[in-house]
Amino acid sequence: MAAPIALIQGASRGLGLEFCRHILKNKSLAGVIATCRNPDGATELRGLADQHPGRLTVLKLDVDQEEDIRGAAERVKESFGRLDLIVNSSAMLHPSGKGETSLRDVSAQGIISTLTTNTVGPLVMAKYFVPLLQKGGGGFGQQPAETAKQHSGIVVNITAKVGSIGDNGLGGWYSYRMSKAALNMATRNLSIELGRSRPKVVCVSLHPGTVNTDLSRPYHRNVPKEKLFSSEYSVYCLMSIIDTLSMEKTGKAYSWDGTELPW
Amino acid sequence: MAAPIALIQGASRGLGLEFCRHILKNKSLAGVIATCRNPDGATELRGLADQHPGRLTVLKLDVDQEEDIRGAAERVKESFGRLDLIVNSSAMLHPSGKGETSLRDVSAQGIISTLTTNTVGPLVMAKYFVPLLQKGGGGFGQQPAETAKQHSGIVVNITAKVGSIGDNGLGGWYSYRMSKAALNMATRNLSIELGRSRPKVVCVSLHPGTVNTDLSRPYHRNVPKEKLFSSEYSVYCLMSIIDTLSMEKTGKAYSWDGTELPW
Ligand SMILES: NC(=O)c1ccc[n+]([C@@H]2O[C@H](COP(=O)([O-])OP(=O)(O)OC[C@H]3O[C@@H](n4cnc5c(N)ncnc54)[C@H](OP(=O)(O)O)[C@@H]3O)[C@@H](O)[C@H]2O)c1
Ligand SMILES: NC(=O)c1ccc[n+]([C@@H]2O[C@H](COP(=O)([O-])OP(=O)(O)OC[C@H]3O[C@@H](n4cnc5c(N)ncnc54)[C@H](OP(=O)(O)O)[C@@H]3O)[C@@H](O)[C@H]2O)c1
Repeated sequence: MAAPIALIQGASRGLGLEFCRHILKNKSLAGVIATCRNPDGATELRGLADQHPGRLTVLKLDVDQEEDIRGAAERVKESFGRLDLIVNSSAMLHPSGKGETSLRDVSAQGIISTLTTNTVGPLVMAKYFVPLLQKGGGGFGQQPAETAKQHSGIVVNITAKVGSIGDNGLGGWYSYRMSKAALNMATRNLSIELGRSRPKVVCVSLHPGTVNTDLSRPYHRNVPKEKLFSSEYSVYCLMSIIDTLSMEKTGKAYSWDGTELPW
Repeated sequence: MAAPIALIQGASRGLGLEFCRHILKNKSLAGVIATCRNPDGATELRGLADQHPGRLTVLKLDVDQEEDIRGAAERVKESFGRLDLIVNSSAMLHPSGKGETSLRDVSAQGIISTLTTNTVGPLVMAKYFVPLLQKGGGGFGQQPAETAKQHSGIVVNITAKVGSIGDNGLGGWYSYRMSKAALNMATRNLSIELGRSRPKVVCVSLHPGTVNTDLSRPYHRNVPKEKLFSSEYSVYCLMSIIDTLSMEKTGKAYSWDGTELPW
């Protein structure tokens, strides 16, 4: 079997960066493609590339720009010809860096920007990269014996528990919540289309828990210490889930501990 | 009690127009404010205004333009000072007029336009009109005896069954499905914020069934006759639900027959 290849979208910081680090460290055969909107500024990614010569490729990709996505897919096609895993990790709470506390804070432009990055970007990623996942070797997840039930690749959309409509008891954070609910619909819809295709591709939404990154920084002081995960721990949990994925688990949203999230 | 006032957003055609007609005909005391993006072209609305002198006000409002929404709210505030019901009816399947049949049809611009009209618009409507609903007399829905549980107004977001993530078994129509899932999150979030406010405002999502309007026209030939509702019948059913609404029913999505839709 060819070496598995993972593409991590939104890899300059936070969970995306940690996914790269984790795979390079723990999947000694795998190659990693890390995309970010400003490769020149991504010093930590460059450090990782130096530590793992020949295994990490960094590509420029602003997920708000369809042309960037198309161009990056073209380059991956030329250089690798296939993919086994995509993780869409980039997102923002709101352009201001803080979720709306009430309706008063809502603005059309704020919601549209948030939806563009958190929701539209991951789906447009699927549009251009699914053809490469369909050429993948199924190097991530678990393969059943029956060939017809095997998958060639996996799409992971990083969602958030606050994007669960049924679980929403607190309100607030309009843009972010709406963006993740719509992302979950994209996951579900993709899982149906990619479950019919041949070869098949798995698609799930994963919630990382509350993680010590820039995104959640304004709220860390309200989180009990044991509930604020390091990105190492969160990615360890999420990769453990990814290792168990198969077509049987497609089309759902899972939390870091493997439990299913309600829509 | 003062005469109830309903505002119907997206009233030039289809279900929005029928909501205006229905309320003018069946709620003989109520005043109606009809908003649409091109009042000069809205001949049917003008006909209704002639048939019901003094009861129908037509205002220009393109739901994609926050400034239009703010301006219309300003005018309603000056002329009426309050509202009892808002129905957000405007929407599109996709700028092309047809939902995406597969991932290949997806484009960033198509999704963003659909989300802007179907999702962002209704929430920004709430931002500017909720203060007027909080001055309403609770003229629509049902009021319990206990004053603390009464509502002053109602927000209805017209959703679609295909916007239910849990009910999605077919796939396709990425933009439209995602827009309605995100709209349902907006409904849920609004219901929480407006359930805490004083006075309280009810907020629900309603699915009209498959209705004989321009929006669904490309698909009518695939719909069994008895399942393709007239807009008269659909609005009759939806108004019957609105007549039963109270704070007990807030924050949910209901189908035309009153059953609850899963998220
Ligand atoms: N942290 C939490 O507690 C938490 C909880 C639930 C869910 N999540 C989800 O976990 C995922 C990762 O979040 P995080 O905590 O790692 O956030 P983070 O540390 O703030 O990192 C956000 C990442 O997204 C990238 N990004 C933003 N806009 C982009 C664009 N237009 N194009 C490309 N990349 C863009 C950033 O790149 P730049 O460096 O270029 O800005 C950065 O790499 C997100 O989907 C988030 O919603 C996080
Ligand atoms: N028909 C169905 O089978 C069906 C099924 C499920 C849900 N729904 C929902 O029911 C609601 C009403 O749909 P319909 O069937 O009545 O559709 P329709 O006949 O196509 O009418 C759409 C309405 O939306 C308005 N609109 C579109 N973009 C707008 C904008 N930017 N600003 C203001 N108004 C705008 C249109 O105004 P113009 O005249 O200016 O274009 C028109 O009045 C929608 O929310 C739809 O999603 C319909």
